[in-house]
Amino acid sequence: MRLALSIEYKGTYYYGWQIQNNHKNKTIQYHIEKAISKVANENIPITCAGRTDTGVHAFSQIIHFDTIKKRTDYKWITGINTYLPDDILVNNIFHVDDTFHSRYSALNRTYRYIILNQQHPSPLLHDNVLYYKDYIDVDRMKNSIQYLEGQHDFSCFQASGCSAKSPIRVINKIIIKKVKNLIYIDIKANSFLYHMVRNIVGCLLDISTKKHKPKFIKELILSRDRTKAGKMVLSSGLYLMRIDYPKKYNIKYKKIYGLFN
Amino acid sequence: MRLALSIEYKGTYYYGWQIQNNHKNKTIQYHIEKAISKVANENIPITCAGRTDTGVHAFSQIIHFDTIKKRTDYKWITGINTYLPDDILVNNIFHVDDTFHSRYSALNRTYRYIILNQQHPSPLLHDNVLYYKDYIDVDRMKNSIQYLEGQHDFSCFQASGCSAKSPIRVINKIIIKKVKNLIYIDIKANSFLYHMVRNIVGCLLDISTKKHKPKFIKELILSRDRTKAGKMVLSSGLYLMRIDYPKKYNIKYKKIYGLFN
Repeated sequence: MRLALSIEYKGTYYYGWQIQNNHKNKTIQYHIEKAISKVANENIPITCAGRTDTGVHAFSQIIHFDTIKKRTDYKWITGINTYLPDDILVNNIFHVDDTFHSRYSALNRTYRYIILNQQHPSPLLHDNVLYYKDYIDVDRMKNSIQYLEGQHDFSCFQASGCSAKSPIRVINKIIIKKVKNLIYIDIKANSFLYHMVRNIVGCLLDISTKKHKPKFIKELILSRDRTKAGKMVLSSGLYLMRIDYPKKYNIKYKKIYGLFN
Repeated sequence: MRLALSIEYKGTYYYGWQIQNNHKNKTIQYHIEKAISKVANENIPITCAGRTDTGVHAFSQIIHFDTIKKRTDYKWITGINTYLPDDILVNNIFHVDDTFHSRYSALNRTYRYIILNQQHPSPLLHDNVLYYKDYIDVDRMKNSIQYLEGQHDFSCFQASGCSAKSPIRVINKIIIKKVKNLIYIDIKANSFLYHMVRNIVGCLLDISTKKHKPKFIKELILSRDRTKAGKMVLSSGLYLMRIDYPKKYNIKYKKIYGLFN
């Protein structure tokens, strides 16, 4: 029996998703595997859709695992949550067939980056946003979206250490909106290269502050040169928002709220 | 020379505002006094408008202090912020005359309480809201506002240990609004008794979930009996939002954002 879970977490105090020998209990994967294994009363390895980095948050990370143990949905969710720390939580469960794979069945991923654009940083939002002091011209940012959307070789936004076989990705949609002092950048793509979102946002900020023209993105992508892109932004503003799967798997999302709507 | 500062903080990791012998460096006051004293290069005691409790946040706490040292506004703000941890920040400075007192000159205080009303708690908002699972009927809550507003003896909402000379307070205005899964309760009063906001919110929740009728508040206030009020709610959802002073002091507030707008 294959089960999938939607998991929300605040990444601030973790060394990212994947278990590492030197930071084992400071990874999201470690806590979730341990909690599921306790509820199932057997050792359960899990697979996730996207291995998030140190400090990156998730509104909905999708994982799957196999088990022959029978529990009600309620027991799985509440049982697992009992064993999780306050900053990690299972918010949904899905019954999927054996063809489902959280990573390989995914059609698209959507990441959100949140920037707080005002004179002073905010202690209340410190863990949840990138604080940026200089005025951000959202329209300049929007003018560069046309050069990012579509299928491209995104080598210029790929960090070293990326294990991807090809640097070609399809960005389906970028939505940038400003709500009071907060700027939301949503990027939906078939998949992402290592640090790709944070490198793109760094570049959009350079365009916003007139270091570059919007069309710079076009030249940058054609150059395939990582050294020409700007600085990568912090992980504090980055959220894995949702993963889209073929409809037959019936993976549904709940309404979201507050900072994340 | 008397200066006033507006201070924002996330109260999660502090034992409240006031320095206590056993938790000295885990109080907001300790960090701010230390930082101001470093910038002034002399020992500077400070006075605040409202001593917030363990875990309570502030969007704008107002403090004042006296010094003969001269610094530009920019130097005061950036200097003090250099010595503060990430969860405390000075966001404004005001030049006031010697008649100004952050506590005694205050005309009104506004506190906000934020409730996340949905099926599951949220790791991403864990420190910033009260999670509440049962359906909240906001209209029932609103129907009880009429019994709270105005001048009353609020003994029924006063926690033991309150040092106030009189339990009589004036609630000027209560605004309750729902934005998606978040419920905001703003209470403006001339001043508050110890735990008064958190006791009122506990009572509003009992009314919302039909444990009591809206008119129960009227009977409760008349009874002056603390044991008849409901459970006090957690500090995680409570924010000191603003303090109003006579216009002549020119204490201004910046635009606010996101969760706090």
